[in-house]
Amino acid sequence: MSEPASLEWEHISAARARLVGRVRRTPVLTSASLDTLSGAHLFFKCEMFQNAGAFKARGATNAIFALEDTRARHGVVTHSSGNHAAALARAAALRGIAAHVVMPRNAARAKRAAAERYGARIQLCEPTLADRERAAEELRAATGATLVHPYDDLQVMAGQATAAVELLEEVGALDLLLCPVGGGGLLGGSAVAAHTLQPALRVFGAEPAGADDAARSLRAGHILPSEHPQTIADGLRSSLGVRPFAVIRRCVSDIVTVSDVEIIAAMRELWEILKVLAEPSAAVPYAAVRAGRVPARGARVGIILSGGNLDLERLPWQA
Amino acid sequence: MSEPASLEWEHISAARARLVGRVRRTPVLTSASLDTLSGAHLFFKCEMFQNAGAFKARGATNAIFALEDTRARHGVVTHSSGNHAAALARAAALRGIAAHVVMPRNAARAKRAAAERYGARIQLCEPTLADRERAAEELRAATGATLVHPYDDLQVMAGQATAAVELLEEVGALDLLLCPVGGGGLLGGSAVAAHTLQPALRVFGAEPAGADDAARSLRAGHILPSEHPQTIADGLRSSLGVRPFAVIRRCVSDIVTVSDVEIIAAMRELWEILKVLAEPSAAVPYAAVRAGRVPARGARVGIILSGGNLDLERLPWQA
Repeated sequence: MSEPASLEWEHISAARARLVGRVRRTPVLTSASLDTLSGAHLFFKCEMFQNAGAFKARGATNAIFALEDTRARHGVVTHSSGNHAAALARAAALRGIAAHVVMPRNAARAKRAAAERYGARIQLCEPTLADRERAAEELRAATGATLVHPYDDLQVMAGQATAAVELLEEVGALDLLLCPVGGGGLLGGSAVAAHTLQPALRVFGAEPAGADDAARSLRAGHILPSEHPQTIADGLRSSLGVRPFAVIRRCVSDIVTVSDVEIIAAMRELWEILKVLAEPSAAVPYAAVRAGRVPARGARVGIILSGGNLDLERLPWQA
Repeated sequence: MSEPASLEWEHISAARARLVGRVRRTPVLTSASLDTLSGAHLFFKCEMFQNAGAFKARGATNAIFALEDTRARHGVVTHSSGNHAAALARAAALRGIAAHVVMPRNAARAKRAAAERYGARIQLCEPTLADRERAAEELRAATGATLVHPYDDLQVMAGQATAAVELLEEVGALDLLLCPVGGGGLLGGSAVAAHTLQPALRVFGAEPAGADDAARSLRAGHILPSEHPQTIADGLRSSLGVRPFAVIRRCVSDIVTVSDVEIIAAMRELWEILKVLAEPSAAVPYAAVRAGRVPARGARVGIILSGGNLDLERLPWQA
């Protein structure tokens, strides 16, 4: 299939229309106390309130509803250990087609249960990228299902971008926009949206220091894979995708990093003061503000809180 | 001062206008998963996102801005160990007047710190109702400040009612409206609002079994004080007020009770699935839905999630 080379505003605009009534428009929260603590004016786009608890519903739903009927009826397939699996299963159920999900044997039980609840057909594999890709490819060949990659896909990126579009519409002019970076789908999509809607707005990625492949890749000018990532932010361990990288290079001012200690402290403040269940990955951009890694002082700063799926048995600040 | 005998819609309507720009309009959240679990269609009015983390900002702010200038300039005084103290201090600062707060020596450090952060002048007292009232009366006599009771006050009740008004405006016709009951300010105010805006809507209070004075009072037909309340829901230990009781008798269908075990399970579901930090008191109405204590099946149910101020060192479901 021929595919346009790069994410354009037209994809995002089409995603916007396609997602109406299929995913939520999430609220934007502010906090006088967090503004005082940070010295900035912060606008939090709360994607933990999105369907299936994360922004991933936007991209997966857009990709599935963008398929032509003749392709869609064979279903979709992906490999994921996280929020994309549940999001894809939910969107497939909404369209009435099958979702095949390859999951590593060591995936969190809660995430597997979520995908199953939405009706995913799950196939377990070994926890290596090679085995995940091989298993997904076998399923694709056997069923004719369309592969929907978690982030290296223009329709997925276009869907993720709609969170930033809603935020900018709601709060008007911003100085900075901050997103977490894992595979780069959210950051890349948001950057193209911001670039179009508010050309003066500077977009930053924020990444765990223990999984800093995107920051290193941006400096190097080519993709450096994420090797042995070590971070509490389980949603941000994947390697930057080719399609996201292409737009990140063009539209993102910088990618900054924060330590796990900084992520946990930021997460705790978001819980205590903003009163939202931000998962560790979602707390990474606010951690960058707290640590002074982005020029937020006195600025109007938009932050995408990416999701809220985590295990509540134990809290990360408990010894 | 002469005071009207009972809360009327006119008080609420005036509070509505008075609060614009002074407190937040909080979002209403829904969850397909919680709807499936409960068999009802649930609309959660999220007052943990209110200023100072609880609905209390509404009543305190309305009471303070309803004062004439000649009275207001002497400041306000209250006794409170909880969210009302911070809410009153914040509203007083907004109007530029002094807030004197009598707090029991054993008040939670976090709640005292919150009131101090908003500039309250704190005076500690012994943890008995008699000593609290005596200390507040002494301060009132010495300073000329106006007493703003946490719930037994028509302007406070009128302010609290505005959460229900916003909810009904946003979601339209409901079958049930559920509020937690402590002193009854939120329930009483909400009931009058519902009675006016949607006369067919049935309003229920939900109360911890270990602090069931409101349920017992409603059955007895007169106020029975809360004696030795034992519940994790620290916001709901106080005795029902005279003014709230007058309207609760007239406009509330019933007050039901739930155990602390049921409250904790409900709170955990609100965190895990709705992704909001509901404090134990805020989880009480949803606990009543889960336990089948209210006729929620198949119904459109509004729930006021009253606040989100709690200690995050340890979670109540941890052994």
